[in-house]
Amino acid sequence: MFNFLPKEFNFFDLMEKQVGFAAEAAKAFKEVAAKGAVSDESINKLQDIEHQGDDVTHTILEQLDKTFITPIDREDIHALAKELDDIIDMTCTIASRMKIYRVDRIDKYLVEFADIIEESVSSVNCAIKGMRNMKNVKQIYMACVEVNRLENAGDKLRDVALGDLFDNQKDPIEIIKWKEIYQEAETVLDICEDVTNVVESIVVKNA
Amino acid sequence: MFNFLPKEFNFFDLMEKQVGFAAEAAKAFKEVAAKGAVSDESINKLQDIEHQGDDVTHTILEQLDKTFITPIDREDIHALAKELDDIIDMTCTIASRMKIYRVDRIDKYLVEFADIIEESVSSVNCAIKGMRNMKNVKQIYMACVEVNRLENAGDKLRDVALGDLFDNQKDPIEIIKWKEIYQEAETVLDICEDVTNVVESIVVKNA
Amino acid sequence: MFNFLPKEFNFFDLMEKQVGFAAEAAKAFKEVAAKGAVSDESINKLQDIEHQGDDVTHTILEQLDKTFITPIDREDIHALAKELDDIIDMTCTIASRMKIYRVDRIDKYLVEFADIIEESVSSVNCAIKGMRNMKNVKQIYMACVEVNRLENAGDKLRDVALGDLFDNQKDPIEIIKWKEIYQEAETVLDICEDVTNVVESIVVKNA
Repeated sequence: MFNFLPKEFNFFDLMEKQVGFAAEAAKAFKEVAAKGAVSDESINKLQDIEHQGDDVTHTILEQLDKTFITPIDREDIHALAKELDDIIDMTCTIASRMKIYRVDRIDKYLVEFADIIEESVSSVNCAIKGMRNMKNVKQIYMACVEVNRLENAGDKLRDVALGDLFDNQKDPIEIIKWKEIYQEAETVLDICEDVTNVVESIVVKNA
Repeated sequence: MFNFLPKEFNFFDLMEKQVGFAAEAAKAFKEVAAKGAVSDESINKLQDIEHQGDDVTHTILEQLDKTFITPIDREDIHALAKELDDIIDMTCTIASRMKIYRVDRIDKYLVEFADIIEESVSSVNCAIKGMRNMKNVKQIYMACVEVNRLENAGDKLRDVALGDLFDNQKDPIEIIKWKEIYQEAETVLDICEDVTNVVESIVVKNA
Repeated sequence: MFNFLPKEFNFFDLMEKQVGFAAEAAKAFKEVAAKGAVSDESINKLQDIEHQGDDVTHTILEQLDKTFITPIDREDIHALAKELDDIIDMTCTIASRMKIYRVDRIDKYLVEFADIIEESVSSVNCAIKGMRNMKNVKQIYMACVEVNRLENAGDKLRDVALGDLFDNQKDPIEIIKWKEIYQEAETVLDICEDVTNVVESIVVKNA
């Protein structure tokens, strides 16, 4: 089923490369959380990953435009490439914002977000890799269910974190900073779910 | 024209069910506004509607992926299902945020927003139901014009509400809370307009 | 290649008209920045441009729905029309928000944003106009590269502006206002890049 693609456009290789960068970004972000602060070194590392990810995204989209027949609907490949790119960008944005806002500590909620993000991106990785062979349907579905579960966990975590923030933080400027950071962290998990929604749709169409 | 769909995927039944949940959410939100405060009971009610709406959205998208010929462009059905889902989600988000922020009063602007949202979702309902028979073109257009009018009214209301907030509220934390609530309320009306834009596009294509 | 379109739907004329309104909006916004304050006159001028732009957007989308064969993929025309509309809307939103927030001075960062926005929209204009004849490939690509460069410049400018704001502004209400204004200004540049991404995609598909 997946042999129609021109050899020069190996969608699966490129997509695996891209989700690999998403996994690296999630790992680098978890290291930031473990260190308890964002350093210039971490920012540089994340930006380096972001640029490499950008290159792959660009290659996928360009190859897609040059390719007439794809085994997977064009708009699905397009959506996957954009959303994997968004995962990387948003993860980098959080670290970058923390630097700009001079956030010099990582609170327990963000540590938990970093864990959940890493787990979710790891399941996204599984789902994407599973697509090489539609026999992996069960593995793909299990990964999608996990991403969905982690998105719900992230929603709850954001609500708890925001509740704590508004109940206990009296400095409005700190509220502005952390509100944005929590909401961006939750957005990473939303985008992971968007990816697996597309993957599920691809699987159903090819069933 | 609309007989091509496989019997098991009754798009119109599902879409009416989904817009019905949107109408219920708008009604529940108006009750919150009428009571002047958000209660655990209201939150539970809204979350219950949200979950039922999620199930219908999921069914529509899955059936869509399994269906080769649809009377309406696939991407239009997809967009409608996602946007009706977004109406419900965003309405629930406002109530949930009010609880987390411990907002214990509803101001006059939010009461007005709740009215406009209910009217707009009711017109969205009309437009969606009208699609069963393209002879209803006039009814559909009138509903779309009404949704557009209410979106403009919502824009103006948000501007007045934000102006009042920044002129008279001196507590920056209150400004953070209410700015988000007003902007989210206006977003519900934007999404209603997105729905009717898709409906109009479907009507034109099938004219 | 571009003769397939029905005469009554002159996509290129309409698109040039629309990008012309985007250029007018960017110019009007630069005048606001030059004057150092937003006046009712500027707001009215911008709203007038916005309404004219809305009309063209509506015409394009409606004609698109009525047209079976287009030389350019329907979804690409749809995306271009929506994104050019978004450029105009977002530019108007910034000025409107400044009025509502009673911002009575324009800071150096916003002056720089107004310059970059005008340059970027001018390159978007070049890219759109270039599409009339695919022989202009080089001109189109150069315009797209320029829009990309300006988007990166805008990212850096926003980071510097936000850093300065959080380092030096002690009034949280001022932070709320300016944070939103800077982020919206950067969003205009993001949308310009979205437009040129679609243009590049069209060029590659027609190469």
